[in-house]
Amino acid sequence: MDDPIQQIDQLTIIGTGLLGTSVGLALKARGFKGHIVGVARRAATHEQARSVGGIDAGTSEIAPAVRESDLVILAVPLGAFDATFTEIAPAAHDRLVLTDVGSTKSSVLAAAARHLPASLRRRFVGAHPMAGSEQQGPEAADAELFASKPCIITPEPDTDPAALERVEALWTTLGMTLLHMSAAEHDRAVATLSHLPHATAVLLVQVALEQGGWEVGSTGFRDTTRLASSNPPMRADILTANREAILTALSAMRGQLDRLEGLLREGDHERLSALLESSRTARERWLRERWGDAG
Amino acid sequence: MDDPIQQIDQLTIIGTGLLGTSVGLALKARGFKGHIVGVARRAATHEQARSVGGIDAGTSEIAPAVRESDLVILAVPLGAFDATFTEIAPAAHDRLVLTDVGSTKSSVLAAAARHLPASLRRRFVGAHPMAGSEQQGPEAADAELFASKPCIITPEPDTDPAALERVEALWTTLGMTLLHMSAAEHDRAVATLSHLPHATAVLLVQVALEQGGWEVGSTGFRDTTRLASSNPPMRADILTANREAILTALSAMRGQLDRLEGLLREGDHERLSALLESSRTARERWLRERWGDAG
Repeated sequence: MDDPIQQIDQLTIIGTGLLGTSVGLALKARGFKGHIVGVARRAATHEQARSVGGIDAGTSEIAPAVRESDLVILAVPLGAFDATFTEIAPAAHDRLVLTDVGSTKSSVLAAAARHLPASLRRRFVGAHPMAGSEQQGPEAADAELFASKPCIITPEPDTDPAALERVEALWTTLGMTLLHMSAAEHDRAVATLSHLPHATAVLLVQVALEQGGWEVGSTGFRDTTRLASSNPPMRADILTANREAILTALSAMRGQLDRLEGLLREGDHERLSALLESSRTARERWLRERWGDAG
Repeated sequence: MDDPIQQIDQLTIIGTGLLGTSVGLALKARGFKGHIVGVARRAATHEQARSVGGIDAGTSEIAPAVRESDLVILAVPLGAFDATFTEIAPAAHDRLVLTDVGSTKSSVLAAAARHLPASLRRRFVGAHPMAGSEQQGPEAADAELFASKPCIITPEPDTDPAALERVEALWTTLGMTLLHMSAAEHDRAVATLSHLPHATAVLLVQVALEQGGWEVGSTGFRDTTRLASSNPPMRADILTANREAILTALSAMRGQLDRLEGLLREGDHERLSALLESSRTARERWLRERWGDAG
């Protein structure tokens, strides 16, 4: 048997919210035979994860579960990584492999470096499965949440090759397409393509609060601001954890605002049209490459 | 018979694109018995509008159609209002009523003041039916395009009351909810709720072109940038026509970017969370009031 996932006897998912519980459901749907333990601080949360079938057993204690596991998946909020690594470290044995689902990677790798001994840190492989939902909690878990979505893996130069192989196998078993990049590259890319769009959605609503005019808002405003309805504490954690890359993206956005303002002040209709055309062309090329159509 | 729409024997729609042809289709679907003439520079355009049933007769000449009409609807691009008013003025009789579908109103009223004699200008009632589509042209016309949408009416202090009554009857016949505001109020409101969201969508794509990272883009980027796929020449006309209000909105957006950057630099997690929460609450209140749910 050379499937590095079926070799796992016990796997622990720390954090049985939407993502953590969906990992369990997806593994079971794909024939995983091992035992899945789910850890959540609140008993109601791991009980709910068990009742929807995402885990086989629930607990509030990290150490005993980690001690018996071959693989641990951290699916906790970004603000909880320090405390979680601190509890994992003393319970870890020397074959334990770790991965996570965090939306930022440099901050997670820095927390791993702070709290894990070097040999264990080399068996932590950062991952960002690009899947989610407006919904939250174990009751919203979905065995197909990850299918056909990209998963970014951020191994370090000294990452243990066997650990990397196991973590890659986990995410490909769930149907994901792997993308490899450094943690810094990942954080810059998501700052530009995900965190800045969220920030502008939030700020567009603030401009409307400041300037008024809500009665004329229509589908354009609704869609452009959709991300402003995302969970505020989770989003505040992301903005804080990816602060440097987001400051760069905000600065790029300010530069673009200045450019548009300049074209409007100069009345340069030709370059204004070229700017709009360039954005439309780039977006539609991306839509075709990413989604296979222009919708 | 006191329905001011059924009193119309002939009505002319100048510009038989998506909006113009939809006005004709919608009137016929609601039992309008008069003759509808459609004007388009290109014969293929008015022929297509006739073949989908939006107009009874097509022509490329404005003056003869205007001479025989009780009501004229300008559904031309913003950049064509000057030329269109110039052709209407010498053909207008003293009971003619005019309205339009332009996305900005101060620029349209200014063009009317430049080209129409005062008595006719008082019978022009600016309107902005808040309806549209990603599609263009008469073949995309839809008799239900306007139903249940808001229509902003921008009468002036000296607008002729009978003209106002007729124009209001036109848009309510099409199922629209009327909102009255001044042209300046309208332009500020659409700058904030429509033109700024479009501009940020365009600029988010430019930031991605500048910074890279497209491979991690997902549904958030897709939805936040949807407006960047809008027709560039039409959008360049709108940005130019509503320049002053858009410069104000861009400046407000810059102020909000500065505010977010300040909170990130200070690491003020509490005020950052409060900002995100305030945007979410405001957006969801608007969704409920505007669309009747939180979706």
